[in-house]
Amino acid sequence: MLPGSTNVPNRVMSAMLAPIINHRGDDFRVLYKAIVEKTQQVFQTNGEIILLTTSGTGAVEASVINIIKKGDKVIIPVNGEFGTRLADLIDSWGGQAIRIKAPFGENPPFEKIEEAADQNKDVKAIYAVYNETSTGTTLRYMDRIGKLCSRNGAFFIADAVSILGGDELPVDKWNIDICVTASQKALAAPPGVSPMSISSRAKKHMQSNPPPTQYLNLKRYFKYYEENFETPFTPALSLFYAFNEALDMVLEEGIDERIKRHKICAEAFYAGLYTMGLTPFAKPDAQSNVVIAVNYLPGMEDKKFRGLLSEQFKVLVAGGFGDLKGKVFRVGSMGEVNRYHVMRTLSSIASAINILGLKANPEATSVALEKMKPLQ
Amino acid sequence: MLPGSTNVPNRVMSAMLAPIINHRGDDFRVLYKAIVEKTQQVFQTNGEIILLTTSGTGAVEASVINIIKKGDKVIIPVNGEFGTRLADLIDSWGGQAIRIKAPFGENPPFEKIEEAADQNKDVKAIYAVYNETSTGTTLRYMDRIGKLCSRNGAFFIADAVSILGGDELPVDKWNIDICVTASQKALAAPPGVSPMSISSRAKKHMQSNPPPTQYLNLKRYFKYYEENFETPFTPALSLFYAFNEALDMVLEEGIDERIKRHKICAEAFYAGLYTMGLTPFAKPDAQSNVVIAVNYLPGMEDKKFRGLLSEQFKVLVAGGFGDLKGKVFRVGSMGEVNRYHVMRTLSSIASAINILGLKANPEATSVALEKMKPLQ
Repeated sequence: MLPGSTNVPNRVMSAMLAPIINHRGDDFRVLYKAIVEKTQQVFQTNGEIILLTTSGTGAVEASVINIIKKGDKVIIPVNGEFGTRLADLIDSWGGQAIRIKAPFGENPPFEKIEEAADQNKDVKAIYAVYNETSTGTTLRYMDRIGKLCSRNGAFFIADAVSILGGDELPVDKWNIDICVTASQKALAAPPGVSPMSISSRAKKHMQSNPPPTQYLNLKRYFKYYEENFETPFTPALSLFYAFNEALDMVLEEGIDERIKRHKICAEAFYAGLYTMGLTPFAKPDAQSNVVIAVNYLPGMEDKKFRGLLSEQFKVLVAGGFGDLKGKVFRVGSMGEVNRYHVMRTLSSIASAINILGLKANPEATSVALEKMKPLQ
Repeated sequence: MLPGSTNVPNRVMSAMLAPIINHRGDDFRVLYKAIVEKTQQVFQTNGEIILLTTSGTGAVEASVINIIKKGDKVIIPVNGEFGTRLADLIDSWGGQAIRIKAPFGENPPFEKIEEAADQNKDVKAIYAVYNETSTGTTLRYMDRIGKLCSRNGAFFIADAVSILGGDELPVDKWNIDICVTASQKALAAPPGVSPMSISSRAKKHMQSNPPPTQYLNLKRYFKYYEENFETPFTPALSLFYAFNEALDMVLEEGIDERIKRHKICAEAFYAGLYTMGLTPFAKPDAQSNVVIAVNYLPGMEDKKFRGLLSEQFKVLVAGGFGDLKGKVFRVGSMGEVNRYHVMRTLSSIASAINILGLKANPEATSVALEKMKPLQ
């Protein structure tokens, strides 16, 4: 139950065993073209798709170094570790990040972003981390940022690494120029490939202003795909096979159904945890449907609690990042997550709390079960 | 028989099915530490080891952006596609590449490199592509470049992507500060992870001069490894499992035995091809033991010849790169290559030549077999 890498279905794992083929041959081209087309469906976009052999960070970095030049102004909401990292990268790359901050666990009011855009008419782009994995918050006004960007001509770049496939994200409808995700989160494939979508105006910009590097230089990816349906550098073939299979599973389930399943599981988690006596770290209007960060009660020591869960119940949850270390634990509710994951995780948490000598309200699982009726 | 990605043994493929675990947990730390230690043995180094989730190009780029600053002079032999690419990257990143050129198929005389070093006492580094995959040549004076660098204080960086594990490469003995390879070549693992070794003085330099990016910023990798035996960003876990297994196979065979096997297979290939009436593209003193580039005879049309090999014999060989397109074919003789690969490939080539209406000398396979006696 980690917030990525998530569990990978056997069907997807087995796909990795397909033969190692020539990545400059027709069999690969057919595979890559199929992946691109399915990814477009999952991203709900007609834009370009690029698959990088990197973690999500690599693709997020590509979204910076292919857009931002020295002195470019960027607006970015910052309310957690990943927003901080991204803003720092923009600055160190030579851009000027205008940080719209909020306390961790909350989203900055949209009006503050609007205000910053009004005061900086020359802003090149707005970057937004859609789901802050470090705090379990989701930015609930991505559509409004999209509208703002189409009004003022800025690029809109979404870091959707930990959420795409687990919550609403109609890329074209929300006017997102670059949307970045990773294989190992809500799409439930093994880690190592990171897909991104790129609008035609962002593509045009990238083609005329490529960065002084090679590996994350997207101009090269466009060229190789247009000419031959290939990648410029050797792709992680086995992971491409797996990702292709994972996309099939997403499309077989249906994107709307998948998002609904994530929402229901998250609601059950939140309701069960509340009943148990635990509170989410995120404020109600910012709570994520894919990563649930939970405040520790006094007497719940991080290492001991997570050790109990892991050793006695084989349930893995993550600890807190940076300042939140020791203060919260984080449950990934993404990818393959379903009724029995929620039930098993909640009952294990309740038992661990009892073992620690605290009292968990025993009604937690019934409350969660009730919430999940639509899944039955 | 491609010059990478090469065939991957089933044992290595199956290793990818191991469970997706937390890359911030102890099980991963044990795995990563084991990989690092085995990679040190295979590289014959006591230096640091970093495993990137990228293709070889990503690791080569890391060797540039973590060392080279604006205006830094670099000497680099250029006699093929990969040398050209690397020199271009150095320039576009802000360095000044002093290219020591030779016609493709030949190595520039070592004296020219020495001369350039004498004329540029302030040279920051010498970069060398040890094996030029595009032309089938190997630089046979890496040890001398190492000595030159230790005399003048320059860093010595070896792009050994297509050769490490298939030919001599004692990293510390040859005074190599950064050695870069990739999983899918002579080490016979699936593509997507690229290991590199880093000397202590190169490490020190990198730590005080990190690049303005994140994903290939090696300072972060040092920090995460030192503190926790972790990678800073999500690793391609399944490929790490596979690479670990591939390292076991290398060490079980023994590095010297493995290099000997590659040498014998290459000699058999060259002898067989000569007998058949074909000539290698590379000059004798530059011929590679891992990639064999062969000149087409008049009447051997690239697509038709390789199509025949692929469709009728299930033997995949690569075409030429850039200017060599249509002029040569390239055989990968690396990784798992053994007697029967050589025999099957040579006899298929001979048959394809006959089908094309030319005459291949039928003694080619006996000549090759004779050469491979030491393997029997």
